[in-house]
Formats: sequence, C-alpha cells, structure tokens
Amino acid sequence: MALKHATSGEIVEIAPLGPAIDALPSTAIVRDDRIEVMRLVLPAGKRVPEHRVDGPMTVHCLEGELEVSAHNETKRLGPHQLMYLAGGVDHVLHALSDTSVLVTVVRNGSS
Amino acid sequence: MALKHATSGEIVEIAPLGPAIDALPSTAIVRDDRIEVMRLVLPAGKRVPEHRVDGPMTVHCLEGELEVSAHNETKRLGPHQLMYLAGGVDHVLHALSDTSVLVTVVRNGSS
Repeated sequence: MALKHATSGEIVEIAPLGPAIDALPSTAIVRDDRIEVMRLVLPAGKRVPEHRVDGPMTVHCLEGELEVSAHNETKRLGPHQLMYLAGGVDHVLHALSDTSVLVTVVRNGSS
Repeated sequence: MALKHATSGEIVEIAPLGPAIDALPSTAIVRDDRIEVMRLVLPAGKRVPEHRVDGPMTVHCLEGELEVSAHNETKRLGPHQLMYLAGGVDHVLHALSDTSVLVTVVRNGSS
C-alpha cells in the first residue's frame, strides 16, 4: 500500500480510477492517532477474509461492486453507497468487479 | 437535520443529489459514541462560520464546490476531493455553488 499520508488541510483526489484500476495499488490517505483513511483497490474476485477492527468504520464504494458480509448478512455495495460498521464487528469483503472503496476507521488513540 | 441514523451493517445512499439539492436538508447518517457522519447540504453562498471539533475529521465533496479555510489558507474542494483536518483545527466552509459534502468526525467517546 502506498504510504504517503495527507497532512491536515491537504486535498486528496479520490475520483474513481476507471480503466487504470488494474494497474493501481491500494493507498493510505490519512493516518493519525485517532483516524485512518485508505482506498482499497480490490480486483474482481478478491476476498478480504473475516477480520475486525476495534473502532467503528465506514466503507464507501467509489467504483465497482462488492459484497460485505457482517452481522450474518451479505449485502451488495455499489458506487455512492456507504456502510457503517460498529467497532469490533467481524466482516468480510468480496469484490464482484474491479472495485475501489474508501475505508475510514476510528483508531484507539495509540499511534 | 434529518435524524435517522444508520445501524451497523445498513447501506446508506450518498449519491449526488443533483437538481433536487435545492429542496433537500442536511442529513445525519451515522452517530455512535466514537464516530459521526453527516451530509451537509450548503446552498451557493452559504458560509459555516469558524469552528472546530475536538477530533480529527474528513470533508469529502460529493457535488458542487466549496472553499475550506484552515491553517491560514483557503482551498477549493470539488467533487471527488477530500480534505483531512486534524483535531481542534479551526475551519470555515464557504459554498461556491450548491454543494453537498460528506463530513466524518471522530468523537471523544462520550455519547
């Protein structure tokens, strides 16, 4: 994952990647002691196995389509849709097409 | 502001509002003890006076264009652009056109 983090007040481009998505990696966008924002690039078929994070989070689909499984349900998330997950909730991501998602995670306060 | 908050695992539509933006209010999207997400609808010319929040935040422009003033600089934020602001940073928002922004704020842990 590319590791250039934005500084406070910096503008970050998060437009859909379009056809270039095949060639681009996931990127770190923001990380301080209380928040982390990243863009995950998930090629079609990619599965992020079940995991959880301590803090609450949001998953915002920027392009493509993925399944998010949590709370014993699987839901499809497409462009312009966002899912909130409370802290500590196990979840699985599964890209149905080439997908990029903006993930925002609340951190615990340790760096 | 409309006050229906998403539950964990719920999908929320955050597509641009388009011409309907004139008639639609700002909406609360998520609120728990550690995160708050809202869509602010700012008509052209609207100014949100200088303020700060304790926690770090992101401002993600969904449509329109606005100026964000912080750290003694004013920057323009358009669609598909996101700005991170560290906790406690004074900032002003000023909509240059009819604008909606997704604002994500890290909260302190008290409800």
